[in-house]
Amino acid sequence: MTKFAIIVAGGSGTRMGSKIPKQFMLIGGKPILMHTIEKFLSYDFSLQVILVLPANAMKMWYALCDKYQFYPPIITVTGGNTRFQSVKNGLKRITAKEGVVAVHDGVRPFVTSEIIHKSFETAQLHGAAVTCVPLKDSVRITNEDGSNQAVNRSDYRLVQTPQTFRLDWMRTAFEKEEQSTFTDCASVLDFAGYPITLVEGDYENIKITTSDDMLWAESILLKQASTED
Amino acid sequence: MTKFAIIVAGGSGTRMGSKIPKQFMLIGGKPILMHTIEKFLSYDFSLQVILVLPANAMKMWYALCDKYQFYPPIITVTGGNTRFQSVKNGLKRITAKEGVVAVHDGVRPFVTSEIIHKSFETAQLHGAAVTCVPLKDSVRITNEDGSNQAVNRSDYRLVQTPQTFRLDWMRTAFEKEEQSTFTDCASVLDFAGYPITLVEGDYENIKITTSDDMLWAESILLKQASTED
Repeated sequence: MTKFAIIVAGGSGTRMGSKIPKQFMLIGGKPILMHTIEKFLSYDFSLQVILVLPANAMKMWYALCDKYQFYPPIITVTGGNTRFQSVKNGLKRITAKEGVVAVHDGVRPFVTSEIIHKSFETAQLHGAAVTCVPLKDSVRITNEDGSNQAVNRSDYRLVQTPQTFRLDWMRTAFEKEEQSTFTDCASVLDFAGYPITLVEGDYENIKITTSDDMLWAESILLKQASTED
Repeated sequence: MTKFAIIVAGGSGTRMGSKIPKQFMLIGGKPILMHTIEKFLSYDFSLQVILVLPANAMKMWYALCDKYQFYPPIITVTGGNTRFQSVKNGLKRITAKEGVVAVHDGVRPFVTSEIIHKSFETAQLHGAAVTCVPLKDSVRITNEDGSNQAVNRSDYRLVQTPQTFRLDWMRTAFEKEEQSTFTDCASVLDFAGYPITLVEGDYENIKITTSDDMLWAESILLKQASTED
């Protein structure tokens, strides 16, 4: 079954308090997004990778590719106003009839080949694979009346990416009208009625969204580099 | 109102894959627990601090105190078999009739004076203050039939410490029989029927529980140190 990956790097970086979009910030002296793309290509160099970038970030991206001599065999497309639209734009570029598609955050550079492999394998078997980790902290739910109480944390999972789906399921799900409850692809597939299979992720597979995360990112990078030696 | 702090360092460190209890592991060249105690005493040196340690960790703790010339004005008591029992043991050492008690994880060394202050202030006003942060990731709930679906993440909060309570509320709550649902003090106060007020924490106020956290801890420490300069 043909394997695709849509890497979504649509963020404008406003949460980071920086003018540089966060996917372009450097870790280990190289833009985060390049680390992420390399993880997918080093898992399988024949993987068909579609990178989704905001229109106003294209120029900077190509300048960075020149600067870092980074010319991977990937297709780059323009994102939309929301993550749903961005993923949908990436999906449109896939013309194959059959396959499995992994959707991954551009700012999750520490995904491992093992996680990518499990995600593809599970999607091929069960149709929809969503990477997640158990919660380490206690969790409380807030109610409309302002009160709040503890919930059983073992019932919950924190969602990561990759989220990998059968191409036909994904196409059907992304034909539906966008809902305000869509926070990731899994919620889009939920809405279309497809069952999701959970795949165990890794606490190091972090999404870099704040400047605090950058510190953590550098230390994970050092650790991953030392493990590879 | 007299202010107390119970610092709970009951863990045996088994989750860390280390023979040294995690509260004694070094960050910035000093045991984590010493950083945590210093945070509370630097917030208010007149604070009455009760440290709860496992019986089999006492000898190592006193040896470390000698090694690091660390002799803070605190009371040290022995923990119980569960966190509930450990907190209860600490609570027993408070003889005052009135006051507010902050309970804090020994392995959360990055709590700030601001968070400690807000927690005490809120508990004095409303009776029970629990530090927490919004979830950054999508969340799914798993059901008994094996299925799972997205929940509205803005309804949930990840719980941290300090958790600060009126002394009388806390005494009443900890007189009840221990339940398997008790994962923190907030769940104990819930069970006794007391309303909890949420106080905003900080993503850097992490609980160090795995070796991955140690890397992050070192980088936060460096950042906090550079901010203080």
